[in-house]
Amino acid sequence: MSAMDPRQEADTGLLSPGWAGTVADSLLGDAAVVTAMLDVEVALAAAQARLGVIPRAAADVIATAATAQRLDVAGLVAGVRATANPVVALVARFTAEVAAIDPAASDFVHRGGTSQDILDSALMLLCTRAFGRILGDLDRCADSLAALAARHRDTPMAGRTLTQHAVPITFGLKAAVWLQLVLDALDRCRTVADHSLVASLGGAAGTLAAYAEYARLAGVPTDGGVELIAPFAAELGLREPVLPWHGVRTPIADVAGALTIVTGALGKFATDVQVLTRTEIRELVEPAAPGRGASSAMPQKHNPVFSTLILAAARQQPANALVLFGCMVVEDERSAGGWHAEWQPLRECLRLAVGAAANAAELAAGLTVRPERMRANLDLTGAAVVSERLNAVLAPTVGKAAAKKLLTSVIEEAERTGTDVITLLGRELERHGHPADVDRLGSLVDPAHYLGASTALVDRVLARHRERRPSAAVSS
Amino acid sequence: MSAMDPRQEADTGLLSPGWAGTVADSLLGDAAVVTAMLDVEVALAAAQARLGVIPRAAADVIATAATAQRLDVAGLVAGVRATANPVVALVARFTAEVAAIDPAASDFVHRGGTSQDILDSALMLLCTRAFGRILGDLDRCADSLAALAARHRDTPMAGRTLTQHAVPITFGLKAAVWLQLVLDALDRCRTVADHSLVASLGGAAGTLAAYAEYARLAGVPTDGGVELIAPFAAELGLREPVLPWHGVRTPIADVAGALTIVTGALGKFATDVQVLTRTEIRELVEPAAPGRGASSAMPQKHNPVFSTLILAAARQQPANALVLFGCMVVEDERSAGGWHAEWQPLRECLRLAVGAAANAAELAAGLTVRPERMRANLDLTGAAVVSERLNAVLAPTVGKAAAKKLLTSVIEEAERTGTDVITLLGRELERHGHPADVDRLGSLVDPAHYLGASTALVDRVLARHRERRPSAAVSS
Amino acid sequence: MSAMDPRQEADTGLLSPGWAGTVADSLLGDAAVVTAMLDVEVALAAAQARLGVIPRAAADVIATAATAQRLDVAGLVAGVRATANPVVALVARFTAEVAAIDPAASDFVHRGGTSQDILDSALMLLCTRAFGRILGDLDRCADSLAALAARHRDTPMAGRTLTQHAVPITFGLKAAVWLQLVLDALDRCRTVADHSLVASLGGAAGTLAAYAEYARLAGVPTDGGVELIAPFAAELGLREPVLPWHGVRTPIADVAGALTIVTGALGKFATDVQVLTRTEIRELVEPAAPGRGASSAMPQKHNPVFSTLILAAARQQPANALVLFGCMVVEDERSAGGWHAEWQPLRECLRLAVGAAANAAELAAGLTVRPERMRANLDLTGAAVVSERLNAVLAPTVGKAAAKKLLTSVIEEAERTGTDVITLLGRELERHGHPADVDRLGSLVDPAHYLGASTALVDRVLARHRERRPSAAVSS
Amino acid sequence: MSAMDPRQEADTGLLSPGWAGTVADSLLGDAAVVTAMLDVEVALAAAQARLGVIPRAAADVIATAATAQRLDVAGLVAGVRATANPVVALVARFTAEVAAIDPAASDFVHRGGTSQDILDSALMLLCTRAFGRILGDLDRCADSLAALAARHRDTPMAGRTLTQHAVPITFGLKAAVWLQLVLDALDRCRTVADHSLVASLGGAAGTLAAYAEYARLAGVPTDGGVELIAPFAAELGLREPVLPWHGVRTPIADVAGALTIVTGALGKFATDVQVLTRTEIRELVEPAAPGRGASSAMPQKHNPVFSTLILAAARQQPANALVLFGCMVVEDERSAGGWHAEWQPLRECLRLAVGAAANAAELAAGLTVRPERMRANLDLTGAAVVSERLNAVLAPTVGKAAAKKLLTSVIEEAERTGTDVITLLGRELERHGHPADVDRLGSLVDPAHYLGASTALVDRVLARHRERRPSAAVSS
Repeated sequence: MSAMDPRQEADTGLLSPGWAGTVADSLLGDAAVVTAMLDVEVALAAAQARLGVIPRAAADVIATAATAQRLDVAGLVAGVRATANPVVALVARFTAEVAAIDPAASDFVHRGGTSQDILDSALMLLCTRAFGRILGDLDRCADSLAALAARHRDTPMAGRTLTQHAVPITFGLKAAVWLQLVLDALDRCRTVADHSLVASLGGAAGTLAAYAEYARLAGVPTDGGVELIAPFAAELGLREPVLPWHGVRTPIADVAGALTIVTGALGKFATDVQVLTRTEIRELVEPAAPGRGASSAMPQKHNPVFSTLILAAARQQPANALVLFGCMVVEDERSAGGWHAEWQPLRECLRLAVGAAANAAELAAGLTVRPERMRANLDLTGAAVVSERLNAVLAPTVGKAAAKKLLTSVIEEAERTGTDVITLLGRELERHGHPADVDRLGSLVDPAHYLGASTALVDRVLARHRERRPSAAVSS
Repeated sequence: MSAMDPRQEADTGLLSPGWAGTVADSLLGDAAVVTAMLDVEVALAAAQARLGVIPRAAADVIATAATAQRLDVAGLVAGVRATANPVVALVARFTAEVAAIDPAASDFVHRGGTSQDILDSALMLLCTRAFGRILGDLDRCADSLAALAARHRDTPMAGRTLTQHAVPITFGLKAAVWLQLVLDALDRCRTVADHSLVASLGGAAGTLAAYAEYARLAGVPTDGGVELIAPFAAELGLREPVLPWHGVRTPIADVAGALTIVTGALGKFATDVQVLTRTEIRELVEPAAPGRGASSAMPQKHNPVFSTLILAAARQQPANALVLFGCMVVEDERSAGGWHAEWQPLRECLRLAVGAAANAAELAAGLTVRPERMRANLDLTGAAVVSERLNAVLAPTVGKAAAKKLLTSVIEEAERTGTDVITLLGRELERHGHPADVDRLGSLVDPAHYLGASTALVDRVLARHRERRPSAAVSS
Repeated sequence: MSAMDPRQEADTGLLSPGWAGTVADSLLGDAAVVTAMLDVEVALAAAQARLGVIPRAAADVIATAATAQRLDVAGLVAGVRATANPVVALVARFTAEVAAIDPAASDFVHRGGTSQDILDSALMLLCTRAFGRILGDLDRCADSLAALAARHRDTPMAGRTLTQHAVPITFGLKAAVWLQLVLDALDRCRTVADHSLVASLGGAAGTLAAYAEYARLAGVPTDGGVELIAPFAAELGLREPVLPWHGVRTPIADVAGALTIVTGALGKFATDVQVLTRTEIRELVEPAAPGRGASSAMPQKHNPVFSTLILAAARQQPANALVLFGCMVVEDERSAGGWHAEWQPLRECLRLAVGAAANAAELAAGLTVRPERMRANLDLTGAAVVSERLNAVLAPTVGKAAAKKLLTSVIEEAERTGTDVITLLGRELERHGHPADVDRLGSLVDPAHYLGASTALVDRVLARHRERRPSAAVSS
Repeated sequence: MSAMDPRQEADTGLLSPGWAGTVADSLLGDAAVVTAMLDVEVALAAAQARLGVIPRAAADVIATAATAQRLDVAGLVAGVRATANPVVALVARFTAEVAAIDPAASDFVHRGGTSQDILDSALMLLCTRAFGRILGDLDRCADSLAALAARHRDTPMAGRTLTQHAVPITFGLKAAVWLQLVLDALDRCRTVADHSLVASLGGAAGTLAAYAEYARLAGVPTDGGVELIAPFAAELGLREPVLPWHGVRTPIADVAGALTIVTGALGKFATDVQVLTRTEIRELVEPAAPGRGASSAMPQKHNPVFSTLILAAARQQPANALVLFGCMVVEDERSAGGWHAEWQPLRECLRLAVGAAANAAELAAGLTVRPERMRANLDLTGAAVVSERLNAVLAPTVGKAAAKKLLTSVIEEAERTGTDVITLLGRELERHGHPADVDRLGSLVDPAHYLGASTALVDRVLARHRERRPSAAVSS
């Protein structure tokens, strides 16, 4: 066995292709969690100082100590096993840190606080930051897809259903479908970013009793419990909840739902890219760069890496959401296990969405489109790909059922014999006593002339894209 | 082996306690699906008649035939295996039905239509109807919970965290937590009902080409494809989509997300009810009725049936949502398997939410609250349940850490010896050189006087409840 | 709205493409459940009669009544909502039925029984029957795949990795991969069928107290509790458990695990079939039959129906397993919600596996293989598909890294210019001072000569197939 | 915002209470993965040297380099995004490392290898190590539970069903239920450890072609492809697969299934512990230690930490298994996304099982049982808890239905009025003309005399425990 790294216990994303190498790591690593928890302790002290519950000077020392804090994550992890959360140990260490600067101030650390207030608020801070990145990358992705849809508004390609060529579409329409999904994801993320990212403040059992008690002891005239929620939330840049949400996990479920729609939307995009980059199809090529998509064995390989990374995320994400949805069902004022089961799936949910959005933005920006391959594939089945149209045209003359039957047999014969569909069709129509203008029939079967409302639909989605409000407002 | 029923293949909810015996069965059974699919065929014909694509008379015959239709669900099920959807067989049968009334009209059935347009639109109709029921029952549930929260605004009980008594709360606050969850669920359901229940119309590959072609052949001047979407949606009372959504499954994901929040919210309510009805706790009693909650073996048993039914639904629901979220990731213009995997989980998702909402409405309406048991349990641990307060009061005098240490040891001794906490505490304070006014300390430890912001928080949720817009608008 | 069916509440699989039209419906419908529950009541009485706890004559009347029983499933469904299980109502109705034949016998119905004993045992009976079908269909599927693997042991085709042509394989190897999966699934199912399908007998809280009490009152000398388990299990053809398993849900988890491996294995098979039936690839064709795979709109369409049905099942199944695994975590001697959440997912789990196995057996039996298309696709990229071999051959001469670099650039140039890889390669090797025998290089690049151990691997799997024990032993 | 740690991107389990602080971190961290991948490269070289494909000296240098290797995980993570796996970058770095020792040897690194061979084999090594720990801890847990079951074989307590007291059981029986689950989990883990942990060796597309080609070039007479599998597996201490399993993911599914049964089994144990440690019930106390279970706010709190940690794992685990089961469904010879989605859920699956087993072993070893509280709770409902027995005794005299009705009303009256059940019952029997021996009735209602087969069942499970084969054989 080879030599061990002293930090061997760390997980830095080596087995997480869904987000490895994106900003998801530093944004959501353990240190970011600890930093966010300290941010919350600082905000609590600041809000209490604002109400007069603790001295302003103490709050300032607490803020200073948080900035100076040298994190010892390993010690906190041991604490997780002892007390089932990382806050108890953090508060002990942080209190010592404050005391080292000013012993008097240390009594005011975490005053009235409960572990869940600190950790839930910290996780909401991480959500805010992650949503900022996700929205930014989805915006970039949407812009690229909009450009593709506009540029290829009229580029014909085979529409495929149940794996078979069906009728023609345009590549613009396909890009518009992806864009529609990304716009849907943006909408849902913005709603959550605007409404569901709430501060958590409830105290031991959600009554805010200790906060109120310390306020009372400090002689603060107002209710130091309920009155503390708004300034605390304001310090953190989070929304104020109606109620402490220790047992009301809708904010987490909202985050899970929106982020699963993100990876679902991008997963559809990635799936289509993979189909269209297949060796036999080659209508799309993923953005190339030295070493990207390389194989350890085969020099010729150029693997579709971004779509692979996105699909890895999309396959994993619903399971995280499921755990989080399941954790709405918890017992009592604060749960023994249900709450604890949320933390890592929530972090992973954020990471996968951050990673997928980053990868999708790059994929969309660098995608190579090959209209000539699209046309070549579209022509593979001859007139069969517009059989629907022939059916519509013949039905009034020969009857709906008879038309379908006739076309089915003609197309089969054409496939079997390699003969042209229109020639065979003219012959059969003649034979059945419905002589037809073969030239006119022939003019109908150019796939590029049977695109339906493809371009109009592209325009509808592009209009939606133009009208959306910019994400800047919500990004942190 | 015993005799077999000729309809033995039917599933009527015998193994589905989450919704058995509620309206979920008739609302979402196979016949309701078939009816909805016929409603969609009728709407398609009506919309096409409006645009002049088919004769009004044909649309009328189609509508008449749909009403007269004798359903043969069994035949359609066989068709599902042959063509991987129930629509191909339905159209064949329905066309024959129309032809029996008026052969000329039968050519206009399903004109330009694709299976997915019909089935997706039909499922959205079922969603509309199910959401109407869910919203109604959640409203009833919210009203009952609001009444409980108001009535027991000040009723003290033990707040429990990690299964242990923590600090006092009021039962009103607990009911307010449940109410907050139900209001959250209502909000999310209303948003989906108002925005995500869209008609599906795209034709074979989402270009609307055949619809447009038939319009062209009928000499209709406008684009008979895109122009058909709005009247079609209007006929069905569904929203108009920006784009055909064969490959854009956000509407389904939205439904899944909202309904999982419904069962999650109600699952929390049910879980708390089960804790509080335990034989040792008995603070709540589920609504009684003859035979309800009976055991086949034990005459004394009165099982908490409604909470059990709700929890069965809550345990199952996230898995349905997961499948539906996963089915956002599909290939091509229309998927071979991904779409098909949605139907039954979507139906089950609706059923479980309909069932859970109905059961929760009855549970909330009939819940018996026993304040005397709440008080008895609250007194079980003596002053320990307000140790947090004692800690706050002593900290300034004896120091934060010392206060916690002192209280921990005093409470342990009190538990072990059965002595009164305050007596022991006075003695210890004396011994440590901090003589205290024992009477004043004693006055602080009445749990009913350490309720924090319980009542203020109840009022905040009740205010939210009063301000919500009535659901009537969205129910069908 | 159209006319309603009086049995509209029934679900007969209309939205369940994963198993619609297979035997899953009658095997696992509500009537089959009721029949199985009556089988269990009969077995209980028979076993008690064997021990002398109840009169043999009473057991005979009970058996007769079960045979004569006219099922009223609707009444039982209402009972599910009243008592949270279908057994309480069933016992009441069945007791009346027995009393109608012989009032004296009716007192001996369900003697000492508890609802969970009856329903769990009945579900295990359904499992036994379903596993019999699954094993039979997997065997049929394995035989067909073995025949395909043997016949196409040497048929070359492109090996595809990350969607791109990699190196050649044989179709026999691909079929062997599918066969290996089916054999794995068979093994796991047989293990479960042989060991995990246990009778449930525990009484009210798993102590068998009432069974023992009735035995005591009947003067039976042995312990009428524990002694009852073996004969009861024998009557049902189920295994005897070590312990009543009301709270030990491993048998259900075992079933879930094995059946998810079934749909997973078959889902891989179906996925590959879909790739290979794509219009651009066309190496495989699904079995054809009149009307199968028809489109409602496009006469030319021949959709891959069986693989679609199998994939629908494979996408849904893990979620059922997840619920069942989750239901291992239950409270107390018998759970309020956890047990109830198992029933329908277990039934659905069985249905999906039964359906997928039936569809896979037909798919494997009727698959058309097109070696000429395989060869044509294999030749699409010229020598690139054996670049790995060229790399190995050149490495000793030009160095490992240099060889890879050289090949990468040569293949890119060949792709870009349409020139032959070997010609370019000879030229470049010359230029770099490594003149090579171009003819020998050329002889290395026939894909049909770079199949590695394909055929040897096929033989290993075929040997495994031959050595497996026949499933007959476990099928019911 | 506070200061950042330079290693802030690392995740060391801070949000993973299910395994934080156990050996899961070092056993399964990134460094352990890298070490295992190097172990695989070393094994590959050693096996090839054994066959004569590469020089023994080169294999020795490779082994030396692996031992000396200084890991740079961060560089590998960047590679994951470039090539969608960590192996390409690892091979480049490791080759350079070997070249630094002996340039000639470096050409023999990873000869013929493919990324998936290396990573899958490495993950199987991690599985082997993790299963060793899990089996060891489950064994310890089983031993402790067996001791509890034996010690409390006859300790009466209330059996609880649907949250209500049902009939008496013994605590020994409850411990036997937990033990039965742990033994089930042990069996399933051993089967997987013995049969499913297979080496992965297939080359680029599962044909072993490059391995064979290098053997051919080296003049090795046998088939250097298939013949390489056995020595390679032997070097790693893994089983030899029938077939390369790049697309045959049963080994992973087997691991997922067994580990979910582990957390499910332990989750049931933890759930029961939480019920029984509730403040109102207090029949069990979790093992205490300084600081363990401490609250940041409430001095009196002693939270049930181990059960909380176990439940957090049990709530998360099925979702990991679901992803892994879903990843059986992959396309082609090697998948673009499906394989990649497995890695982290597999690692997390292992971690959660390692963590849960470690925590359960400590919980079982240190659990305090309080028989006096069990007895006090059992007596809470008077004779009601044996109403089943009274029913059985009275049925022959007064009729089955009449007995149940009579008892129901008597128990209700007893509850309402506080009168003794037996007194009321005697009075009522008298009134209904069935005078009874009240003393004899009274003797029947001692719960300690209505334990059914509790002790016999304990003995059956203890016998199973004694007969199990020791785990030592499989632990690494």
